[in-house]
Amino acid sequence: MKPRAELLCVGTELLSGKVNTHAAWLCPKLRLAGLEPAREVTVGDSLEDLRDAVREAAGRASVVIVCGGLGPTFDDLTREAVAAAFGLGLSYSEPLFELICKRFARYKLAVPSANKRQAWVIDGAKVLPNPNGSAPGQLLEIHGKHVALLPGPYREMAPMFLEHVLPLLREKFGGGLQRASRVFRFYGISEAAADMKLTPMLKSEAGKADFTILAGSGQVELHAAVAGSSAAVKTGLTRVEGKIKKVLDKHLYGFDGDTLESVVGDRLRRKKWTLAAAESCTGGLLGARITAIAGSSDYFRGGVVAYSNEIKKSALGVPDEILKKHGAVSAECARAMAVGVRERFGADVGVSITGIAGPGGGSKEKPVGLVCIGFALPGKTFTTTNHFSGERALVRERSVNAALGALLTALR
Amino acid sequence: MKPRAELLCVGTELLSGKVNTHAAWLCPKLRLAGLEPAREVTVGDSLEDLRDAVREAAGRASVVIVCGGLGPTFDDLTREAVAAAFGLGLSYSEPLFELICKRFARYKLAVPSANKRQAWVIDGAKVLPNPNGSAPGQLLEIHGKHVALLPGPYREMAPMFLEHVLPLLREKFGGGLQRASRVFRFYGISEAAADMKLTPMLKSEAGKADFTILAGSGQVELHAAVAGSSAAVKTGLTRVEGKIKKVLDKHLYGFDGDTLESVVGDRLRRKKWTLAAAESCTGGLLGARITAIAGSSDYFRGGVVAYSNEIKKSALGVPDEILKKHGAVSAECARAMAVGVRERFGADVGVSITGIAGPGGGSKEKPVGLVCIGFALPGKTFTTTNHFSGERALVRERSVNAALGALLTALR
Repeated sequence: MKPRAELLCVGTELLSGKVNTHAAWLCPKLRLAGLEPAREVTVGDSLEDLRDAVREAAGRASVVIVCGGLGPTFDDLTREAVAAAFGLGLSYSEPLFELICKRFARYKLAVPSANKRQAWVIDGAKVLPNPNGSAPGQLLEIHGKHVALLPGPYREMAPMFLEHVLPLLREKFGGGLQRASRVFRFYGISEAAADMKLTPMLKSEAGKADFTILAGSGQVELHAAVAGSSAAVKTGLTRVEGKIKKVLDKHLYGFDGDTLESVVGDRLRRKKWTLAAAESCTGGLLGARITAIAGSSDYFRGGVVAYSNEIKKSALGVPDEILKKHGAVSAECARAMAVGVRERFGADVGVSITGIAGPGGGSKEKPVGLVCIGFALPGKTFTTTNHFSGERALVRERSVNAALGALLTALR
Repeated sequence: MKPRAELLCVGTELLSGKVNTHAAWLCPKLRLAGLEPAREVTVGDSLEDLRDAVREAAGRASVVIVCGGLGPTFDDLTREAVAAAFGLGLSYSEPLFELICKRFARYKLAVPSANKRQAWVIDGAKVLPNPNGSAPGQLLEIHGKHVALLPGPYREMAPMFLEHVLPLLREKFGGGLQRASRVFRFYGISEAAADMKLTPMLKSEAGKADFTILAGSGQVELHAAVAGSSAAVKTGLTRVEGKIKKVLDKHLYGFDGDTLESVVGDRLRRKKWTLAAAESCTGGLLGARITAIAGSSDYFRGGVVAYSNEIKKSALGVPDEILKKHGAVSAECARAMAVGVRERFGADVGVSITGIAGPGGGSKEKPVGLVCIGFALPGKTFTTTNHFSGERALVRERSVNAALGALLTALR
């Protein structure tokens, strides 16, 4: 039996409609550190509930991770609740408040007096610096239990956990057992189809590796994890990868943190090709995804958001006849947009998206979800016509994924 | 004090990387039924953990909703665990198994023998039919507590809850008590500063209304809820709104589902003005946000993603001297981009963003996070220069929020 870890999330917003993603992010990392993430508990901003939940969790588990409730406001009660759970006091730390002040000074902001609350430290706790926000974390070891207090926002919590908590947990609980995991990323296949193709592999690996299949808006990911000796872990992932490639090679586009846009970027860079985008219904979403990758200026020249027909003509050179004869949502228009942006932006590759994202604008011939995607590459052009289901946001996201997926195939 | 409800989610997958959305969906509905969703607990597929968690939850709460663990396989243990928690027995129901068989017959499938597990009913429980899957639900009333066992998959759980559980809870706990909530949305103010301004109001409303303050990338939201008679609820929200407007009127931009982009859209539509966007570091994100609103084609003409200096010159007409003298990230360039896109796209308003999103590309004079935003309106132009903290994605999101926020003010 591995030692238990429990996660405690704090905030009435998490019991009022906000999705809590902390467990999904933290639990696999706790497993990697040799712990069994056995329970996740969310409580609202109530001192008593939080104090009781901390006490209960510490009664069952060796490690308790508390996320949230470290802000400057009246309803941020984690410091007080954890102290109360263990009968400890809190002390105000002037040096810690000065650190908080420095952060405000860097952005030329006055320090609200409320932020003094963040300078109270539980007796015996180690302060964890927070380079991404004003809330310092705290790390407490008491009665052989490890309790970490981390900020609620993901962008503050995640780096603090990775830098200050995970290494400690690995050292204490990781032992000789190695654990390795890899995410395999697929495109152009449905979850059900991927599942069918993968089932024999999943059965043959039962007891040797763990798997989770996740899917969303045109992409599928398989999370695989193996545990054992250092050698067993290495051969285990290689064996799994080999089996996956046998059945899904043409759909496998990347691993771990790869995204469609990062892999497209790698291929463009390797070919020394540049890209330009012409978007209608996605309104800039494709450009935003491409430029989410740092360094994308190496290959992305820019694009045109042509939300009206006049702009399709004036900024992209789409011929009036195409718009009149085939309409703005047509393979013909998509092709002209891709060719137009490629030429006008002096790029090697032009890609375009034009469609009906809904909820309005659909007709019997051209229903909501109809999306035409165009590609202009050196020496060739092609288009795809797609019928996406789902509401506006999903149609737009699926359109971008389909454009990036087809581009990836074209750049192979 | 409203009666407590607790949510119990079951499944090792929820402690292995799968995001749990049950609380986000169920909690607001429990609130509407007159209950206080006070705690959410997730446990893995362990009989002991689950049994203990059910017992603890029933000890604190009047209503316990258990989601998951009703499937046919060996690790589906919710039926056994709930029975054990209350010292109840389980009986096999032949009529229930026949119902399950009928479902398989409809899809011309053989019934796996494992599905017999799903025909075991806790003594005294009412069976809840599941038109969307093989797992029947169960509803138990014991020692004055209501315990609902629902399937894990959302598409099975949600209809069963809405049809068979929510009406019962409303009847038992909703009483004559009405409940209303409103989200107040602010921009251009930090969470701590908003908190300081709101504190007197929060104190004066203690016991009459509940509040939660949330913040992210340049926006703050206050969730307010009041309960009581129909009249008290109505006057309560009006009273709260009045107090908020006294201290934060110029920062209040909307309510409930409003977004910066929807409110900007409303104002443009009212003025019968059109908009065009010129983006550099945000790569299309501003256009994507604006066009996330259905019907935005009424006022959004489109834009240019000018990711390279040549495109800033060729597609937006930014003078070479500005790029040479001030650089692409400068108030001068931002102004020229806004003026350029306004003219070339024939729009009433042009908005531009140019900055250094990082992690690379920064210098001592122009550090990562420096973002210049330009505006060209009928008869005036202006720019803002911002220093945003955070990693690439956050700098980009904050840039878009700052652009929309300043635009909102300019359109007042």
